[in-house]
Parts: sequence; C-alpha cells; structure tokens
Amino acid sequence: MTEQTQELVHKYSENGITTLTLNQPEKKNSLSMAMLEALSEELAIIASDSETRVVVLAAHGNVFCAGHDLREVREQFDSHEFQLALFNQCSKVMQQIVNLPRPVIARVAGVATAAGCQLVASCDLAVAADTARFATPGVNIGLFCSTPMVALSRNVSRKHAMEMLLTGEMIGAVKAERIGLVNQIVDEQHLDEMVYKLARTIADKSGHTLKIGKEAFYRQLEMPLEDAYEYTSKVMADNMMANDAQEGICAFLEKRKPEWQDS
Amino acid sequence: MTEQTQELVHKYSENGITTLTLNQPEKKNSLSMAMLEALSEELAIIASDSETRVVVLAAHGNVFCAGHDLREVREQFDSHEFQLALFNQCSKVMQQIVNLPRPVIARVAGVATAAGCQLVASCDLAVAADTARFATPGVNIGLFCSTPMVALSRNVSRKHAMEMLLTGEMIGAVKAERIGLVNQIVDEQHLDEMVYKLARTIADKSGHTLKIGKEAFYRQLEMPLEDAYEYTSKVMADNMMANDAQEGICAFLEKRKPEWQDS
Amino acid sequence: MTEQTQELVHKYSENGITTLTLNQPEKKNSLSMAMLEALSEELAIIASDSETRVVVLAAHGNVFCAGHDLREVREQFDSHEFQLALFNQCSKVMQQIVNLPRPVIARVAGVATAAGCQLVASCDLAVAADTARFATPGVNIGLFCSTPMVALSRNVSRKHAMEMLLTGEMIGAVKAERIGLVNQIVDEQHLDEMVYKLARTIADKSGHTLKIGKEAFYRQLEMPLEDAYEYTSKVMADNMMANDAQEGICAFLEKRKPEWQDS
Repeated sequence: MTEQTQELVHKYSENGITTLTLNQPEKKNSLSMAMLEALSEELAIIASDSETRVVVLAAHGNVFCAGHDLREVREQFDSHEFQLALFNQCSKVMQQIVNLPRPVIARVAGVATAAGCQLVASCDLAVAADTARFATPGVNIGLFCSTPMVALSRNVSRKHAMEMLLTGEMIGAVKAERIGLVNQIVDEQHLDEMVYKLARTIADKSGHTLKIGKEAFYRQLEMPLEDAYEYTSKVMADNMMANDAQEGICAFLEKRKPEWQDS
Repeated sequence: MTEQTQELVHKYSENGITTLTLNQPEKKNSLSMAMLEALSEELAIIASDSETRVVVLAAHGNVFCAGHDLREVREQFDSHEFQLALFNQCSKVMQQIVNLPRPVIARVAGVATAAGCQLVASCDLAVAADTARFATPGVNIGLFCSTPMVALSRNVSRKHAMEMLLTGEMIGAVKAERIGLVNQIVDEQHLDEMVYKLARTIADKSGHTLKIGKEAFYRQLEMPLEDAYEYTSKVMADNMMANDAQEGICAFLEKRKPEWQDS
Repeated sequence: MTEQTQELVHKYSENGITTLTLNQPEKKNSLSMAMLEALSEELAIIASDSETRVVVLAAHGNVFCAGHDLREVREQFDSHEFQLALFNQCSKVMQQIVNLPRPVIARVAGVATAAGCQLVASCDLAVAADTARFATPGVNIGLFCSTPMVALSRNVSRKHAMEMLLTGEMIGAVKAERIGLVNQIVDEQHLDEMVYKLARTIADKSGHTLKIGKEAFYRQLEMPLEDAYEYTSKVMADNMMANDAQEGICAFLEKRKPEWQDS
C-alpha cells in the first residue's frame, strides 16, 4: 500500500486499485492547464506501474469536474497558441485514459460538465450516483463542446449526443444510464461500495490479459470488419501462448482458482 | 417575420426559427422528384440565410412522409437513368440536412416510412407525437430501403435497424424513442409546444457557434480517435478566438446574459 | 421439404426456412475445430441454395453455445499455428454469417458465452428466451474475448461492451435486449412460435430483395456518409430494374399480393 498527497490530483493505491482523485473542489475540479498536466503525469506513471490493475477516477467535492477553467482561458483570449496548447493537452489526457493499459472506472458524484463529461465518456466504465448530472453546455457560452463530443459521440447515439450538445442542458443519472453514458447508477451512499466492488472484480483478473484486451478493443473498433477479425484472431492466438491463459484454462478445467503470473 | 407560400413546401420564419412544411398531404407528402427539388431549393436558401438559427421540418396532414412517389417511379420503370437521378437527388437532400449549418429538428406526427423515416433519421433532432409510427417497408414491395438505411443505421443499433429493414413492420413512437430514432415523444396536442420550446432553446444560442459545432460533429464522427481529437482541438482553439465565445465566457463569469454578434 | 441429419450440426429445411442446430449438447455445443468446419460447410451450402430464404441458428440442450472447446485448445497449447488456425476458422464462420445472402436469426435458449455470444451478435437478428444469459468471460481464464468483441462492440455501445468484457459476468435476457444484443425476448415455451413467426414474415419477402439489402447494409456501414449514399443510390436504382421490385410496386398500387419471381 502506497499513499501520496499531491496538490491537484490525489493518488491512493491499495491491492492493485489506484484511485486518482481530482482535488481542487473549490475550483470545481476544473481542467486548468496545471490540472491537466498533473493528470497526465499520473496517468503516465500508472502506464508503467506493474502494481496497478485498475484505476478509479474520482473527485473531491460536489462537482465531479466542471470542464475548463474559464478564468484561465479568459486571461489568454489573445493567444491562439495557448488555447490550442490547452485543447491539445486536454485531448492528450483523454487519449491517455483510452490508451492506458489498465481499465479506468469513472466514479461520478455531482455534476460533470463539458470536458468533465468528456472525462466520464473517456473512461472504460462509469458508475454514477443517482444524483449525478451531466451536460455539454459549451454552446451556452458560445464555445461549442467540440472536443467533448469526440468522446460523447463514441458513447451515445447521434440524436442523444446532439441533444446534449445543441441544448447544453443537464441530464440526470437515469437518462445518462439509459443512453449509455454510464454503466450503472446507485444511491450516493453506496457509490464507493459499488465502484470498488466493480474495481475488485476486474483487479482480480490477470493484468496481462486486461492489457491485451483493452488495447485490442479500441484498435479493432476503428477497423473494417474483415481487418478487425484478422487482427483479433492474431491477438487471441498470441494471448493463448501467455502463461496466464494456459494457467487460466487449466485451472478452469481442473475446477480450481487460477494463479496469475503476468502483470 | 417573413412568410411565403409554395406549392410543395411551405416555409414560415419567425424569430430565427424557420419551419419547412411538406405540403402535399393528399399525396402523403411523398418525395417525388418535384418535392425533392423544392426541399433542396429551400435548404440551399436557408444555408446562406443569416436570419435562420434553427430549422423545423414538419408536414401537413396525418402522414408525415410516405417515401418515394410510387406512381412516378412506375411511370419510369424503363429508365435506369431516371431512377438513379431520383435516388441521387434524394440522397443529396438528406446530405443537405446533415451539412446545413443550422440544426434541423424533425416534428413528426403520423406515419414516416421509407425515405420519410430517413428524413427523420437525417435530422439532428426529432420530436414525435406519441401516435407517430415509423417503418422502412421497402422490402414488402421488393425494393429494399437501401438509401434509408444509411441514415437509419447511423441512428440506431444494428439489430434494431435490421429488424425494421428485414420485416418492413411499423414501430410505434415509444419504441422509436427507446432505440434512439427520436429524442422525445409527447402527446400530439402538445407536439408544437415541445418542438418550438426546443427550437427556441437552440435558437437563442450563438448562430456562429451552432454552425461550428454542427459541422465539426459530423466530420469528427468519420475520423479515427486520434485524428478526431487533432481536428476538434483546432476547432475549439479557433472557436475561442470568435467574438461570441469571448462574449459568452465573459458574460458567464460576470453572471449576465451574453449578447451574440455573429450569425 | 428436405431433412438430413449430421453429427455436429443438424439441418432442417421447410418452406424456405432452414434451421441449423448446434447438436453437441453434451459438449455445450462448443466451437471445436470440427464444429466450426461443420458450420462453415453448411453456411457455404446455404449461400448458393436458392430454396432457403431465411436461416435460423439454434442449439440443442440447455447451453446455446459455450464458446471454444477448452480441452481441444489445451491439447494444442504448444502450437501457435493451431491456435491461429482455430481463431481464423472461427472468424471465417462469423463473417460467413454476415456475408450470407440470407438473413440469419439466432434462436437463443440457455447460455451463450464467449464465441457463443459472438454467434448471437453476428446474426442479423436474435430472439431469446427470457431465461437466456450471455457473457464474454474469457477474461476470467486469462484469455480475453478479443474476437467475440468484434461482433459484440458492433452491436452494443462501448461502455456496455466493456462491462461484459472486463468483468466477464453473465447478463440476463432483459439486459441483453435493453443494450441491443437481442431484438426480442419471450418466455421459453413461446420461443419457437416467436422465432418462426419472425422467420416466416421475412421468408415471404422476395429473396432477391433480401439478398441485395443485406449485402448493402453491411457494406454501407463501413463507408463515410457521402460514399454510403453514392453506393446505395446505385443499389436502389439497380434494385428498381429487378422483376420483383416492379412486380412489388405494381401489386402495391393495384392493392393485390405480389408474386415473387427471383430468388
């Protein structure tokens, strides 16, 4: 068990589950350049950390994440260069989540808006309190949620995505679950229980296998069917040569618990 | 406020909301070549009309749109050239809706079938009366709904699309909402209220921002994730340089209503 | 009416509906190399069988299909060549279903896991008993369901697919219907009634038209919007030249039942 405190992102690891907690509730955990850099750094460390099996992305306070820091953005209104660097950095973090060799679960309490909603959409799984709410409200301030929609539109159907993007209105947790933005909703007092039960279930699998599977999932999604099958057939044949697959299959046939070696 | 009456498509504009109404109820508003040309013309005008913020696509009578005009089609059974021109024209209109720089809301009462169902699927948003019904019944007459399925299969999941296409059977409004073909359903007497409330909400945004967002939405959907992020990061940085974004952000931070300049 | 008995896959044809039944219940209908070859052979025969209009894919026993035969796989742990051949053969069968010129309906009773769940996802339509259950549990034995996810992720949204793949947990029929993996659920005693009613509805259409439509459906799905419209506009114009389309349209306008010629 390791624990370390950071200013912007709190990190806590226990038994293979690493929780990253956005830790600037007084600023609604907004994705300032500094927050994005802190997140990016933590994700880079986890990418090569063999202890972590599963990541939980959480937030302190009653706003999960309110998107970009509009005060910071306003200070740089004259600098196209800064704005581009900001959105590139934000897009980098979202892709780090997708490309991370560990599954990432969003633990959502409170409000997740704009790039905050994008964070939820970018995670592999999401569990939300029944009081959680979601929006892509950039359109209300003249700044369309164009990067958030990349993640949103790959999670929910077109008309649902467009409704959120064009109206900017908040949707509740029940609707978020119905349209596929989150996997499960639960009353807030049982949120941690549900999140960590799910994280535990996944963390008990072979880390090597999770890594293979997550990477292949997002790669094959962008391929035509024939290419996707050619690629994943090779992935599975390779997977079959791994210790954990051979151990897992033997354990299953011998009706015993497998013992994973790889990470 | 401008108003003009046309034979096939009625156009009415008020406060930034332009309603195009299919106006041949005695022919079930079918998409004859003449109707398609009238629609195409109106959409082309709106594309460069700075007054219109939002388009509502509606229909007179108790059939929203029954698809192609089968009598016209039959008269030209010998002409592959005519048929190809007809489907190309129809596909052009559907793409004009998608490419229109203004959001388009389908207002669906009654039955929307074949290319009529495709019209609904092609709009950015759709609100339907709870009595509305939808089908892609071409398979029943030996003419598979192959162009309608382009829009349908980009709105609903594969098995739902295939069920409609292979059986040709009608689905009700509740199912259409459940599978994602329409955003909302409402009892018919409140349909206009709901549609124009939604249209008003969107029309009050910055037109410039809506235009940027809608264009980027459909473009990024066809890109791999990495390209989509590179493209939309640039879109957002550019968006940030616009008057309306800077006004919107300042207004938000100053807790006042924004005043949009761009269109 | 023809009937023939085979060891691994039972085939029965009646009135244009051919039922292929996985017939090794004592081995949970697992997809051994032999079973995959038997399926592949039957699908190849049906592909050029002008009598069959619709295929029903069913299974004997209380397991629909448990995926690969882990005993067979274990015997070949040393052979990457065998494993690759196995997954290539499995991927070939799944694509034969997609590319078959006849619609395929999965009739699911009992449990469908791993490649068994992929079979269901690969069919055009699926009807399940309300007692049916589905999982992609490879992750539990160290062998991620990487080929099953190709079909699964093209049927259900990302978060739903990832939940099944990362947890390996079973989902019930109600959830399978909600997320789009199956079209309909029904109590088990009425499963055949529902499946064959659906099969009959489709088998009564023009076989030529079903063939055109199914092929175009999967092809256009992989195209950008503009290409999809250019392609399907041509498909529809060609379709219009076919006897069955002209007969179907005339029959519709003359309010009589069409008589199909093509197959």
